[in-house]
Amino acid sequence: MTDFFKGIPAIKYEGPDSDNEFAFRHYNPDEMIMGKPMKDHLRFAAAYWHSFAWPGTDPFGGETLDRPWFGDTLDLAKMKADVAFDMFKILDVPYFCFHDADMRPEGADFAENTKNLAVMVDYIAEKMETTGVKLLWGTANLFSHKRFMSGAATNPDPDVFAFSAATIKTCMDATMKLGGENYVLWGGREGYETLLNTDMGRERQQAGRMLQMVVDYKHKMGYKGTILIEPKPQEPTKHQYDYDVATVYGFLKDFGLENEVKLNIEQGHAILAGHSFEHELAMARELGILGSIDMNRNDYQSGWDTDQFPNNVPEMALAYYEVLRAGGFKTGGTNFDSKLRRQSLDAEDLILAHVGGMDACAAGLKAAAAMLEDGKLEAARDARYAGWDTDAGKALMKDDLTTVHDRVVAENINPQPKSGRQERLENLVNRYL
Amino acid sequence: MTDFFKGIPAIKYEGPDSDNEFAFRHYNPDEMIMGKPMKDHLRFAAAYWHSFAWPGTDPFGGETLDRPWFGDTLDLAKMKADVAFDMFKILDVPYFCFHDADMRPEGADFAENTKNLAVMVDYIAEKMETTGVKLLWGTANLFSHKRFMSGAATNPDPDVFAFSAATIKTCMDATMKLGGENYVLWGGREGYETLLNTDMGRERQQAGRMLQMVVDYKHKMGYKGTILIEPKPQEPTKHQYDYDVATVYGFLKDFGLENEVKLNIEQGHAILAGHSFEHELAMARELGILGSIDMNRNDYQSGWDTDQFPNNVPEMALAYYEVLRAGGFKTGGTNFDSKLRRQSLDAEDLILAHVGGMDACAAGLKAAAAMLEDGKLEAARDARYAGWDTDAGKALMKDDLTTVHDRVVAENINPQPKSGRQERLENLVNRYL
Amino acid sequence: MTDFFKGIPAIKYEGPDSDNEFAFRHYNPDEMIMGKPMKDHLRFAAAYWHSFAWPGTDPFGGETLDRPWFGDTLDLAKMKADVAFDMFKILDVPYFCFHDADMRPEGADFAENTKNLAVMVDYIAEKMETTGVKLLWGTANLFSHKRFMSGAATNPDPDVFAFSAATIKTCMDATMKLGGENYVLWGGREGYETLLNTDMGRERQQAGRMLQMVVDYKHKMGYKGTILIEPKPQEPTKHQYDYDVATVYGFLKDFGLENEVKLNIEQGHAILAGHSFEHELAMARELGILGSIDMNRNDYQSGWDTDQFPNNVPEMALAYYEVLRAGGFKTGGTNFDSKLRRQSLDAEDLILAHVGGMDACAAGLKAAAAMLEDGKLEAARDARYAGWDTDAGKALMKDDLTTVHDRVVAENINPQPKSGRQERLENLVNRYL
Amino acid sequence: MTDFFKGIPAIKYEGPDSDNEFAFRHYNPDEMIMGKPMKDHLRFAAAYWHSFAWPGTDPFGGETLDRPWFGDTLDLAKMKADVAFDMFKILDVPYFCFHDADMRPEGADFAENTKNLAVMVDYIAEKMETTGVKLLWGTANLFSHKRFMSGAATNPDPDVFAFSAATIKTCMDATMKLGGENYVLWGGREGYETLLNTDMGRERQQAGRMLQMVVDYKHKMGYKGTILIEPKPQEPTKHQYDYDVATVYGFLKDFGLENEVKLNIEQGHAILAGHSFEHELAMARELGILGSIDMNRNDYQSGWDTDQFPNNVPEMALAYYEVLRAGGFKTGGTNFDSKLRRQSLDAEDLILAHVGGMDACAAGLKAAAAMLEDGKLEAARDARYAGWDTDAGKALMKDDLTTVHDRVVAENINPQPKSGRQERLENLVNRYL
Repeated sequence: MTDFFKGIPAIKYEGPDSDNEFAFRHYNPDEMIMGKPMKDHLRFAAAYWHSFAWPGTDPFGGETLDRPWFGDTLDLAKMKADVAFDMFKILDVPYFCFHDADMRPEGADFAENTKNLAVMVDYIAEKMETTGVKLLWGTANLFSHKRFMSGAATNPDPDVFAFSAATIKTCMDATMKLGGENYVLWGGREGYETLLNTDMGRERQQAGRMLQMVVDYKHKMGYKGTILIEPKPQEPTKHQYDYDVATVYGFLKDFGLENEVKLNIEQGHAILAGHSFEHELAMARELGILGSIDMNRNDYQSGWDTDQFPNNVPEMALAYYEVLRAGGFKTGGTNFDSKLRRQSLDAEDLILAHVGGMDACAAGLKAAAAMLEDGKLEAARDARYAGWDTDAGKALMKDDLTTVHDRVVAENINPQPKSGRQERLENLVNRYL
Repeated sequence: MTDFFKGIPAIKYEGPDSDNEFAFRHYNPDEMIMGKPMKDHLRFAAAYWHSFAWPGTDPFGGETLDRPWFGDTLDLAKMKADVAFDMFKILDVPYFCFHDADMRPEGADFAENTKNLAVMVDYIAEKMETTGVKLLWGTANLFSHKRFMSGAATNPDPDVFAFSAATIKTCMDATMKLGGENYVLWGGREGYETLLNTDMGRERQQAGRMLQMVVDYKHKMGYKGTILIEPKPQEPTKHQYDYDVATVYGFLKDFGLENEVKLNIEQGHAILAGHSFEHELAMARELGILGSIDMNRNDYQSGWDTDQFPNNVPEMALAYYEVLRAGGFKTGGTNFDSKLRRQSLDAEDLILAHVGGMDACAAGLKAAAAMLEDGKLEAARDARYAGWDTDAGKALMKDDLTTVHDRVVAENINPQPKSGRQERLENLVNRYL
Repeated sequence: MTDFFKGIPAIKYEGPDSDNEFAFRHYNPDEMIMGKPMKDHLRFAAAYWHSFAWPGTDPFGGETLDRPWFGDTLDLAKMKADVAFDMFKILDVPYFCFHDADMRPEGADFAENTKNLAVMVDYIAEKMETTGVKLLWGTANLFSHKRFMSGAATNPDPDVFAFSAATIKTCMDATMKLGGENYVLWGGREGYETLLNTDMGRERQQAGRMLQMVVDYKHKMGYKGTILIEPKPQEPTKHQYDYDVATVYGFLKDFGLENEVKLNIEQGHAILAGHSFEHELAMARELGILGSIDMNRNDYQSGWDTDQFPNNVPEMALAYYEVLRAGGFKTGGTNFDSKLRRQSLDAEDLILAHVGGMDACAAGLKAAAAMLEDGKLEAARDARYAGWDTDAGKALMKDDLTTVHDRVVAENINPQPKSGRQERLENLVNRYL
Repeated sequence: MTDFFKGIPAIKYEGPDSDNEFAFRHYNPDEMIMGKPMKDHLRFAAAYWHSFAWPGTDPFGGETLDRPWFGDTLDLAKMKADVAFDMFKILDVPYFCFHDADMRPEGADFAENTKNLAVMVDYIAEKMETTGVKLLWGTANLFSHKRFMSGAATNPDPDVFAFSAATIKTCMDATMKLGGENYVLWGGREGYETLLNTDMGRERQQAGRMLQMVVDYKHKMGYKGTILIEPKPQEPTKHQYDYDVATVYGFLKDFGLENEVKLNIEQGHAILAGHSFEHELAMARELGILGSIDMNRNDYQSGWDTDQFPNNVPEMALAYYEVLRAGGFKTGGTNFDSKLRRQSLDAEDLILAHVGGMDACAAGLKAAAAMLEDGKLEAARDARYAGWDTDAGKALMKDDLTTVHDRVVAENINPQPKSGRQERLENLVNRYL
């Protein structure tokens, strides 16, 4: 153990009545939920970047967090890794996630980046071995360095595309080496600031081609993990091509990749796109592309990505309800893409923010499971659509317009509205909370 | 002529210096723009509904407009048609658009609706013949009557699907009979109020099936017009499936209809979906599904569909620039899906609102054409992507990840950022205005 | 009892484990909370308008609710009152609220409105007597009729100001006669659609003058109730002068009314103004103008007033926490300015929507009281500001800039940041839920 | 001249037909507008911070701009000043604006900050003398350093209040020494991240006290400039106390400062607060607190402060129309609080962005003046309110509720709505553009 979390105990489950802030009140890893331990439903991961690489800056202010490992050397990168794994163990999260740039010092060129990454992959492999913590997913940071300012795959300069492709290859290699269960692409710079200087058609083709290359490489290497795209509507870029779940689906269909790629859906990104989180999860489920979730919470009054730790249990319940209806996670999980407020300076804040978030998720999961197991909600929904399961209903889906028209005339069909019962169903949900 | 517009002259072009409010300052129908009369670029249409069927209500207030034709009889419907065609001639718009419910009295059942529509179609056919005004598109109102409160195609009750299908058939028949150049579907109730009572998977299948039926019927009848979907993110429904251009594209791909159906894009709906109007137009162009536009303006500070007449010429210029880049309208046009403010009570308001809107569009079109003809913007854009037209650039789009990676290493590719010149391009655009 | 709610039992408290949807799980009227029965904290009121006057219309659709009392006669108005009081008794709400226009048929002119209102006031006074249900507040509807389309007090036509003033007088008289504990003003049309036709300076003076007249009349009549303004940023009007709590405060100060008038704060209006509900409540508390609340819930993804029944208990807890910190309601209460979704057609929906909302409020209140009684949150807050309670801190609030400057120099004051502990406090709140 | 702008000529007016991008097409400093040279209406200022201190970072990316003066020494600070004054002369802007932190290197403590500022004030005084460029306003950066993370005046730690007060004193002194015509306060950290750890009542008192100290010091020093507050609703802070014009007005009234302090209104901040820019300007005019403007443009689809250079002339016209209606600027002016996009890397971009912005403002001003001089808009507005200028109208503003009521009854006042003519007025505005 390093000194950073000195005095902070490993967090244990103590039950809802505990008033120990260093304990879980809901997250009880081995408690069985719908036939599976809670930890295997939630598959929690901690994010390397927010917790260990972010200095507390915002657009109007500089560094507030003062961490001994900040700096750009391999020694400091190793210290960072040591502290990170300390946190993973204190929280007992089974997984973590990383970008290359979180983990390694920034090099002067591609070769140096590659070398630095290799050193850190070895170092971290050993820590994973020792601690048993696994890798949920890896990804390449193709947005922070100024070379990506006009896009990575969608850059007007083909050299940036090449640099990006090469970087993705090293990050996929690193992810495979570390046994990562997924590989993620988030296109924070894949979009435009102004249409005036943008050839959207070309950029879309470039993005599609890059994704095909990624999928081809996956198969070539025999990688069994999942390729995930993370949608976001904007920020940093004015418009991002991976706007939301439905948009990415159209993109995947266009490039024939809808069976190859799934989505990593973030609460805050859903909100910024004008959707509820549960909407994006349900949409992905219906389209067959639900992969994993980036868990956080966006301030409903702020128009940017606030990446707060989640705390509203009713909202968590609706989210996990959609996940459970999809059959739960396969290779995906719950990654805390959540960061401390920049005023939360202490080591304790970092631990307790995760404790609160994990507890909110666990409470939400339990409620979602209760909803499903009780079955009243499903029964009400099925009853509402029952007409479609009759022979007449099924026939309708095959008839042509004239046939249907003639039947409406012949039978003088004049449908009467029936209550949608929204408030009753909302009350029902509150019973499980 | 009826009495309603008594004293209002036919609107003529008088040039930018005219201070006659009953004259066009920019819309000069026969002026040649890029080799085509301005009127054939703009293809203006007036909307039957806002101008003749809307009584001035809003969610907190009743009728403010007091029109002699309000009421639910065929005689009043004919008076309404008379006044509408008076307006079309005063403005000299070449087209109009309608919903069945704007035009005919509401009947007690499907049969009565059909009969009423037939009477009015005959009546209007005669007026079209006399005046030379043509039909840009027709559509079915599948959202106002309470039977559609839970959806039309996506209703949980298959009888509503059937009723909707039958209604669409009669409206397609009416559109064909009137020589309409397009048929539009706007799914204001195709979505959900709450996921709790919604089977999104089923509803999506129902919507897809309905669209296939429409396309099949079009082909069966030998109709040469275009089927158009009009996206909107929400309102009246909390979430609508036809959220925006990219979403509808994915839907069309899913049902194999991307070559059969195009889009009718509305300014206000773009804004409500978090996009600029030019974004939606450009996206549709790149996806090959740009069909027609519903021209209006949404208040940037209001979160609902304000449907105001357009007046900001720089914004119009950016919109028509995207239309011209797509090669201009084919069967589509510029429909004023714009309504008077409810305090604009007078007949003169109705005419002058259109005059202002038509002038703003015309001024925008002229600026857009100047931008394209000058070519500086295109040249700057092409220069920015020139690297992709080299052999190395083209090769990149075919290589695999390993090849690209190895080349980055071998050549130590380390791209340097180049200015995107956004402000200079914005200044350039202002020169054409 | 009328037939409308036939078969629906009076709602009783059965405790959290009840699975009877026609029972309260949290609202236990006589349970003591911080020394006072729960019902005296919450002071629930039902709103006459949403539940009994609204036909289910929205901007794109007509009537969905089919109520036997719809129509414009005194007999129907009495039937409506009968059903309303049936609901009040089934729910056992101690209060209701009304606009004149909810209660009486619309007349042809002021005299007829007054006469109709008088009849209904007498009828309702008797029902109040019989049932024991009281009036939380009355108000005048100065926004639905077309005469108010350009404002009531702020109309460019002084006759509308006069008509509005006269109407307010009759509504204040009615409120006093019925023993109403408050009188509310909501200025849905007091604002502008466009600055181009608006003299904002004049309109502000008109609004201020009207409010002074109201306050003078209150004192003249010896009325002991509270005058309340209800802020809303927009909708129906593009901009409303009573934008939010802080704006109304400035307005009251300007007209010397900050000690005469308090605020009725609505959840949905707070959201539309870009604030959280708890923000508006806290702001009003700090400014000494917290009066009453209109309880509902705005959809976070919709840009208009959705007026849904509340259901998110953690949010309710934060709201009632601010109310309790203000010392609780005096003449104010919790009015359900909430309406059914237009698809919720059944009598049962109306009852159960209220049951769910009342339970959410009750659960929120209990959590809020626990937070306060435990005191950990207050202790943390007080500790954070403790420096201001020292002599040095107190002196600072009196010193001048030079003195403070010289002390900073002399003592080389160089403050170090301390953690704000936001996540820990959020975790703490979750413990009480 | 330094080398940075080498090869860029001084910008001259060449008229609307010029196609020289290094020329003004509308800004003609000495052209007379309503009896005054254009430059004396606009009173342009360049902002030191965005153009010379900002490195191109955003929340997801690092430095893109590579300026030779970046770094934290006095020599570099002097080079920065040299380049800044080069730009001021190239553009021929009469004014500039600064924060202390833009101009001087950051010191280790207050004493070092003060010393560094003194050196730079002397250096800049000399440059002002040489070039004739004047200071529109100065301000203190009380938001970037981590000591201000929880507020400056509103910090829970009184030492931060003291440090802030002392810093304001040095910045006011610097502003006076440099002949600044205004002193600005922007409270980017004066607000809260969460109500849970915030004592809003205390913080408001602290903010009020600080402002009183500032005003007292101004009078003590005999400073004739104007104290300005710059409202912003949020960002960086979740809620900022100076939310918008109306909110600040209430705050000023509360502390008796409404005749001492005026406002500096920013386009982007207006948009973020849910208002149009012209609304905020009109509101400030009506409240007598319009001081100065921070000119920029916020992307309508982005929820954060985008600070783009303005380019939409119709919007500029509406803004300057409100300024002209207020009698024009007194000590205020038009400060470009606008920054390059982070992809606009070149020295030319910096010059041309200002050229485009200045031209857009000049074109807007000319249109606004034409609107006012023509007088049609004013005449229409006056006619709309004419009833209030009659004896009956004036009497209404003095009568009591009973008198007015009785007159409505006696005269059976039943007002009929008149058209608001919004579209006609919008058309009229377009004539001046």
